[in-house]
Amino acid sequence: MAPSSLPMFQQRVEQQLQHLLASKIPKTSLLYDAMAYSLLLGGKRIRPYLVYAVGQLLGAKLEDLDAAATAIEAIHCYSLIHDDLPAMDDDALRRGKPTCHIAFNEATAILAGDALQALAFEALCDHAYIQVTPSRQLAMVKALARAAGASGMCAGQAIDLAHTNQQVALTTLEQMHRLKTGALIECTVQLAYYASPIDAPTVLADLRQFADALGLAFQVQDDILDIESDTETLGKPQGSDVKANKSTYPALLGLQGAKQKAQQLYHDAIAALQRLPYDTTELQHFAHYIIARKF
Amino acid sequence: MAPSSLPMFQQRVEQQLQHLLASKIPKTSLLYDAMAYSLLLGGKRIRPYLVYAVGQLLGAKLEDLDAAATAIEAIHCYSLIHDDLPAMDDDALRRGKPTCHIAFNEATAILAGDALQALAFEALCDHAYIQVTPSRQLAMVKALARAAGASGMCAGQAIDLAHTNQQVALTTLEQMHRLKTGALIECTVQLAYYASPIDAPTVLADLRQFADALGLAFQVQDDILDIESDTETLGKPQGSDVKANKSTYPALLGLQGAKQKAQQLYHDAIAALQRLPYDTTELQHFAHYIIARKF
Repeated sequence: MAPSSLPMFQQRVEQQLQHLLASKIPKTSLLYDAMAYSLLLGGKRIRPYLVYAVGQLLGAKLEDLDAAATAIEAIHCYSLIHDDLPAMDDDALRRGKPTCHIAFNEATAILAGDALQALAFEALCDHAYIQVTPSRQLAMVKALARAAGASGMCAGQAIDLAHTNQQVALTTLEQMHRLKTGALIECTVQLAYYASPIDAPTVLADLRQFADALGLAFQVQDDILDIESDTETLGKPQGSDVKANKSTYPALLGLQGAKQKAQQLYHDAIAALQRLPYDTTELQHFAHYIIARKF
Repeated sequence: MAPSSLPMFQQRVEQQLQHLLASKIPKTSLLYDAMAYSLLLGGKRIRPYLVYAVGQLLGAKLEDLDAAATAIEAIHCYSLIHDDLPAMDDDALRRGKPTCHIAFNEATAILAGDALQALAFEALCDHAYIQVTPSRQLAMVKALARAAGASGMCAGQAIDLAHTNQQVALTTLEQMHRLKTGALIECTVQLAYYASPIDAPTVLADLRQFADALGLAFQVQDDILDIESDTETLGKPQGSDVKANKSTYPALLGLQGAKQKAQQLYHDAIAALQRLPYDTTELQHFAHYIIARKF
């Protein structure tokens, strides 16, 4: 069961992404088209949801969360465009539609990814915040840059590339996912925290533990769905991990072991939420939604 | 004649780039190697020079300029890596050495570029400034994001790609260069300004006009050198623009016309400098060096 706030925040971020593109990018270019195509292709908008839901929990104004929600999705989107490139994972289908380099061309896809990364940082800085101080804005930019770069998401993709067609140990798999997917998911709660009036390091620490467990749970569930779901529901070819000889949790732990792992991570996420001095019911629903999802 | 401060600032930025990589990026990875290979490959370091020279002119502390100098070079370097890719300009040689995707592989080159972009923003935010306020730090991040993105450098590269194997009008060529190279060069003076104690919009306006003329002069001279210099001096194949059927100033204006254009831009740059209430002798030498250079 999805939390009741999910559709609301999904709708909000769609509008904000459209507004961001329209306000910052010259419209009359192939580059704009490629950026808009990929950024507005839909998707679950999990990262923006977390920014809004966690920020709201901490008393942030929704208007102060829009920049972070769009910035994190722009980074995620650029990473998908580049990961799909022929030199990387060589994927032709994403969310049921042709990937950016198929719909346009490779050069434009590389460039659209590059420009979306810059747009993310522009969005974070060039926003009319109501209650966020310049110091905390800077903390947001710093958190995003670290999460996106060579000690975060890019490092994870590098580990992934280095082990293509190899089975890796569980520790390597976990490190890869913590960087490749986890870093950005953990970043959502940092962005939400800095956009809020809260100044309590223990709150941030608990939120990061929640996000860390949730991010890994998301990935384990992804691996499980690659086996159990079908192409139409997934929007990408079912069994593509197995076909690409990728290391996955089911491959290392067995399907049952992977399901237990997902449950364990779910409970870790809930435990972290319960340490917070807030009503975290919505976020608990969201954590459940993540590991119970079928797509 | 190069300005006397050029070797000093070149040396300073080399050290700062090494320090940046060592302090922010995990060393034990192919990704680190590829980033270091490209970032420390040398080059004229024109952009960092401008940050330091203009910043010093405005009374900024050199320590407060290091982040901007390294950030702008990291962005420039990532753009070179991506521009050299097979899907883009497909260049095998850069500064006399194999390009990143030749020395490593294509996926690693894409990723190294992506990570260098993130590193630039991390460098700008995560720096122990002495006199720069958070508001002006944010102005720096915003200026860099705009200059690098889809209304700056990426837009220029998109225009370039759209006109491959076509002769374009002079206005299009100029717009392309103003975005592809000019945006970052203009950004150097913005970064230097925000890192300084000066708060005088007319100073910033004059500096931007200087940088705009200088950036275009640099490009015109580049086009001239592609005809007049040789492969060894250039560190890239002589005549490659002509071979790629690229639009250039000499192609549109004739060699003599291009040289006149470079002179005109040089004089525009000097005139802008002379409007500033400072001793701009060093920067005037630099402008002369740019249009008199042979490599």
